[in-house]
Amino acid sequence: MKAVNLDFKKPDKSIVEQFRNVSVATAHEAMGRKNYIDPQIRQLYPGMKICGTAITCECHEMDNITLHAALHIAGEGDVIVCTMGDYTEQGPFGDCMATCAKSKGINGLVIDSGVRDGETIKEIGFPVFSKGHCINGTVKSEFGTVNHPIAFGGQVVNPGDIIIGDDDGVVVVPKEIAAEVLEASLKRLENEEKIRATFLSGVDSWIFSGFGEKLKARGIDIGI
Amino acid sequence: MKAVNLDFKKPDKSIVEQFRNVSVATAHEAMGRKNYIDPQIRQLYPGMKICGTAITCECHEMDNITLHAALHIAGEGDVIVCTMGDYTEQGPFGDCMATCAKSKGINGLVIDSGVRDGETIKEIGFPVFSKGHCINGTVKSEFGTVNHPIAFGGQVVNPGDIIIGDDDGVVVVPKEIAAEVLEASLKRLENEEKIRATFLSGVDSWIFSGFGEKLKARGIDIGI
Amino acid sequence: MKAVNLDFKKPDKSIVEQFRNVSVATAHEAMGRKNYIDPQIRQLYPGMKICGTAITCECHEMDNITLHAALHIAGEGDVIVCTMGDYTEQGPFGDCMATCAKSKGINGLVIDSGVRDGETIKEIGFPVFSKGHCINGTVKSEFGTVNHPIAFGGQVVNPGDIIIGDDDGVVVVPKEIAAEVLEASLKRLENEEKIRATFLSGVDSWIFSGFGEKLKARGIDIGI
Amino acid sequence: MKAVNLDFKKPDKSIVEQFRNVSVATAHEAMGRKNYIDPQIRQLYPGMKICGTAITCECHEMDNITLHAALHIAGEGDVIVCTMGDYTEQGPFGDCMATCAKSKGINGLVIDSGVRDGETIKEIGFPVFSKGHCINGTVKSEFGTVNHPIAFGGQVVNPGDIIIGDDDGVVVVPKEIAAEVLEASLKRLENEEKIRATFLSGVDSWIFSGFGEKLKARGIDIGI
Amino acid sequence: MKAVNLDFKKPDKSIVEQFRNVSVATAHEAMGRKNYIDPQIRQLYPGMKICGTAITCECHEMDNITLHAALHIAGEGDVIVCTMGDYTEQGPFGDCMATCAKSKGINGLVIDSGVRDGETIKEIGFPVFSKGHCINGTVKSEFGTVNHPIAFGGQVVNPGDIIIGDDDGVVVVPKEIAAEVLEASLKRLENEEKIRATFLSGVDSWIFSGFGEKLKARGIDIGI
Amino acid sequence: MKAVNLDFKKPDKSIVEQFRNVSVATAHEAMGRKNYIDPQIRQLYPGMKICGTAITCECHEMDNITLHAALHIAGEGDVIVCTMGDYTEQGPFGDCMATCAKSKGINGLVIDSGVRDGETIKEIGFPVFSKGHCINGTVKSEFGTVNHPIAFGGQVVNPGDIIIGDDDGVVVVPKEIAAEVLEASLKRLENEEKIRATFLSGVDSWIFSGFGEKLKARGIDIGI
Repeated sequence: MKAVNLDFKKPDKSIVEQFRNVSVATAHEAMGRKNYIDPQIRQLYPGMKICGTAITCECHEMDNITLHAALHIAGEGDVIVCTMGDYTEQGPFGDCMATCAKSKGINGLVIDSGVRDGETIKEIGFPVFSKGHCINGTVKSEFGTVNHPIAFGGQVVNPGDIIIGDDDGVVVVPKEIAAEVLEASLKRLENEEKIRATFLSGVDSWIFSGFGEKLKARGIDIGI
Repeated sequence: MKAVNLDFKKPDKSIVEQFRNVSVATAHEAMGRKNYIDPQIRQLYPGMKICGTAITCECHEMDNITLHAALHIAGEGDVIVCTMGDYTEQGPFGDCMATCAKSKGINGLVIDSGVRDGETIKEIGFPVFSKGHCINGTVKSEFGTVNHPIAFGGQVVNPGDIIIGDDDGVVVVPKEIAAEVLEASLKRLENEEKIRATFLSGVDSWIFSGFGEKLKARGIDIGI
Repeated sequence: MKAVNLDFKKPDKSIVEQFRNVSVATAHEAMGRKNYIDPQIRQLYPGMKICGTAITCECHEMDNITLHAALHIAGEGDVIVCTMGDYTEQGPFGDCMATCAKSKGINGLVIDSGVRDGETIKEIGFPVFSKGHCINGTVKSEFGTVNHPIAFGGQVVNPGDIIIGDDDGVVVVPKEIAAEVLEASLKRLENEEKIRATFLSGVDSWIFSGFGEKLKARGIDIGI
Repeated sequence: MKAVNLDFKKPDKSIVEQFRNVSVATAHEAMGRKNYIDPQIRQLYPGMKICGTAITCECHEMDNITLHAALHIAGEGDVIVCTMGDYTEQGPFGDCMATCAKSKGINGLVIDSGVRDGETIKEIGFPVFSKGHCINGTVKSEFGTVNHPIAFGGQVVNPGDIIIGDDDGVVVVPKEIAAEVLEASLKRLENEEKIRATFLSGVDSWIFSGFGEKLKARGIDIGI
Repeated sequence: MKAVNLDFKKPDKSIVEQFRNVSVATAHEAMGRKNYIDPQIRQLYPGMKICGTAITCECHEMDNITLHAALHIAGEGDVIVCTMGDYTEQGPFGDCMATCAKSKGINGLVIDSGVRDGETIKEIGFPVFSKGHCINGTVKSEFGTVNHPIAFGGQVVNPGDIIIGDDDGVVVVPKEIAAEVLEASLKRLENEEKIRATFLSGVDSWIFSGFGEKLKARGIDIGI
Repeated sequence: MKAVNLDFKKPDKSIVEQFRNVSVATAHEAMGRKNYIDPQIRQLYPGMKICGTAITCECHEMDNITLHAALHIAGEGDVIVCTMGDYTEQGPFGDCMATCAKSKGINGLVIDSGVRDGETIKEIGFPVFSKGHCINGTVKSEFGTVNHPIAFGGQVVNPGDIIIGDDDGVVVVPKEIAAEVLEASLKRLENEEKIRATFLSGVDSWIFSGFGEKLKARGIDIGI
């Protein structure tokens, strides 16, 4: 396969859209507590959110030429997921690239290094999830891969997977199970509303879930 | 002793209340520079503050059943202090539990892991000090302890100790010395006001404290 | 040489002033991608900025007497750059010292430990770049050095060097090359404006820089 | 209570002696998977082992005067457990103190910072568990506490608790439960020998524990 | 696909065998400087080496039931590659499992947490690469996956990939490119012998590679 | 000044030689507890020692062309001190370069990244102090500096400074004060022998130093 892979499937757009109303925590639970991304990868500024399909990108540390290629092939609805080798002290993305990405309608960037020109990125309103700010400049020399499976933040991410990011961090929803995860997520949302109403009525989580009884059934006396 | 201990003393309520006006830095100094909590444990959102008496809770990593028990027995004026084993990448507390805690009048949560559903926690206005955000879901299986002495953020915390949290982090005031720490804190506050007035008048800290003379008295010539 | 060195050159004031309009990322690039400070050293509160000439200060860990001496000799236009040995869990600077520094017209503090009394520092409006908040109190005993070369955040900083700090972190511009770095920075600013205009017009960075052609010229076929 | 507490109970000597044949992993399991010390605190040199009763010691960072007091009151059968505030880059213990400790028959030192003079410590044969080597010298100024409860490596340690250290790290056995933990440990040792014999006979852990059946009973089909 | 996947290809045995003579550094270079595993994952004891085909295993943190399943289906020539979520403070593998693995002829274990019973593992001679020692016990409850693609130490590992480990750490060779990587590795070995002979003859790397001339050709004068 | 500086002074050879008998801890104390290098930079293999004069080298991360130049100009008695930007996951030095360095009589390498080909380096017997092992390959592109002042492991190192390394880590002795540090070190060695003899005779450090009396003189009653 070539370094840049253009042949991959994306999930149905309407499914991706509906994930906009699903929090990362809910999607994670709906997948059986899987696929959460390293929580050090966070919103660059408060309030930034991301939802879209992954363009995966693997660079060599301190070299962002591959990220330029990802930017070149990405478009509306896409989120670039870029591994720089998990080294924070790099600034492979800044105001020029953000301007470029924004003008192409790209949905956001998720990256496991720092980025730079934070103030301009905030001003432009291009959503970035990263390991923070860093100005350390990169070269443009050795090419990596675009749209191959990558290890990112402790998870395998494939091109076309759904990426969601909010205050709580980032989660990846594999495209093969996107529809069922969405359904399970919406059910959870409904259920959690009921639970919160119960809690507001004065029944707490210990009582509601019967944890005391369950422990007693296992012969465990905790003293309450 | 049972896993959940209900038999412990709390300091006088009026003492706890007066600590609302004492910063964590001042209380720390008033105790002879002791009892500061690991500064990685911080406000989940800017402006969150905590003051109350500790309900201590020790969970196994990746298991939050014990935290539900702590929530069950805690009430107005309490701060739950929960050790999850100091592993950041856990999300044992979220919107449902926050709703529950808020409706019981609990003063806040201090925890040495991440938490999830940050946006809702902020909305509800329930104060949380944690090691950040993480969605990683936990099980409800092995019971730990509630209201036993715990090692938390590098300090021993006993049930009933006073917990204060502000922008600077968290401090624990052992209940046995609460009254004297309060008195010393209030004296410090008064004194610091005077010092700041002196500094504003143009006398700086080097002159004010006579550091130059003290060094000279020890035979040390630093050149100024 | 004495522990406190008063004999060093500062760059021309007008040069320092013009750096107020240069971002840390731009200055870093203009120096050939050098001299960025450890990005863990950041704004204490959003929006804080620093620009001035370095008063360097080296303390022993957990001992801030030397920082008081730096504060004593610093004045308008100066930024105190203080190494506490790179240990985060210290609070060697707080509201009293901030009051003192502010009233002397000092431009800011850059320090590789925590600081305390964050809320008051924010209120006063004294710019601090640090490794975060920490209340852990220090002693005043062993004297270090002021205005000697120091290793700070991974770089050598000399007294009189220009220090700039913004959202992206901190950079040091050695005074000997300040004029040429300023010139190169201003050229970069002009150039980047053109680049961003190009990107807004629909030409992306891949096309603009001809990366594809360059790879082909090296015989590398990436598939696009 | 005074800063140095001389009034505390120790467990029966014969119990402590029998723990010499119990690994830290076994003792940890025998306590219900509790009380393991931060695994960064390790043998200074391969083969070092520790077993004895705790003399607890809390120092201020960068100040070892309290450790000298602990050394003064400790004797045969004791292990000094010293918290320096969890900061690795300190060298509060070296060849002179090791010579002193060895000549008093002290069983070892467990400390949450670095130590220095490693080569001499190895030569003398005094067992040390630490966060590694560091030469950074300390002052002798502010007194902490000896034989008070301390938070050490994530656990509460009380004076007189049993401390065991081997290749796997360190565990603390609270003195109140020492006898029952010993008994449970010896049972586990016996049991594990049988298990290992079973495994050598060709029955593996999956078959032996019937994990497949247990999952099936919960309705989970994993495909084998 | 089922949680345990038994349907995957392995590379030719003779290819795997020949990698025994290839260092991890050489294989990494032969792949264009790719696929190195997080260097914190190291030999448990000096001298341990690993070479074999991957059985991949993904556990929930603090839960090792899935690792038992991997052990169950692995056999001669296999290396178990197990992610525990990258959390060091776990001990999901110890003497009993090592006995079991050794008696089944498994080639080794590579894991991104700690392990326990180090002394016995060394005695048995079962090669383990891990993030060190930790006794912290795990539960056997939630099943993960076996022989699915996993993110491990910053790389994607597929079942059947070749895993090599030596003093320098661990590298993964994707099975699809195993033959060509082997060939390139053997060429590098031959070449490096010549280079080292040249260096021994007195020509150093700067002269040998003509770096000075190359810089001059780019117009860069470094002064030598 | 050119990127490679050949014009610097070295201390007297006989002084350097005498430091072979001085431990890093002793030299550090003799300098008033200064100039210790980050203790994460350690012997690559047990028993490795270093003593010589610094050739300083600053590389860009992931680029070792400058290290080749340092190797080119270094010779007998020199220790190369190379900063790679403090990023561990690099392998810019391996068996070929070690062969080259050894054959030129270079005394050793101290580097703030990983290195590779550990087994061969050990076999050759070339002393390396690093942040461990890492195979991650580097490019040869952007030139840094050789024999300029560098920030290394938290200290400023100048070309010609004396570098000592043993089990305890690394210390730098500035060349200007080398003679006086040597003298103070030898005095300390003599003194420490006497102290250790005293301790062996049964007088412990608490009694010997009169710490109890000193505290009493300050009005502090610790209870012993």
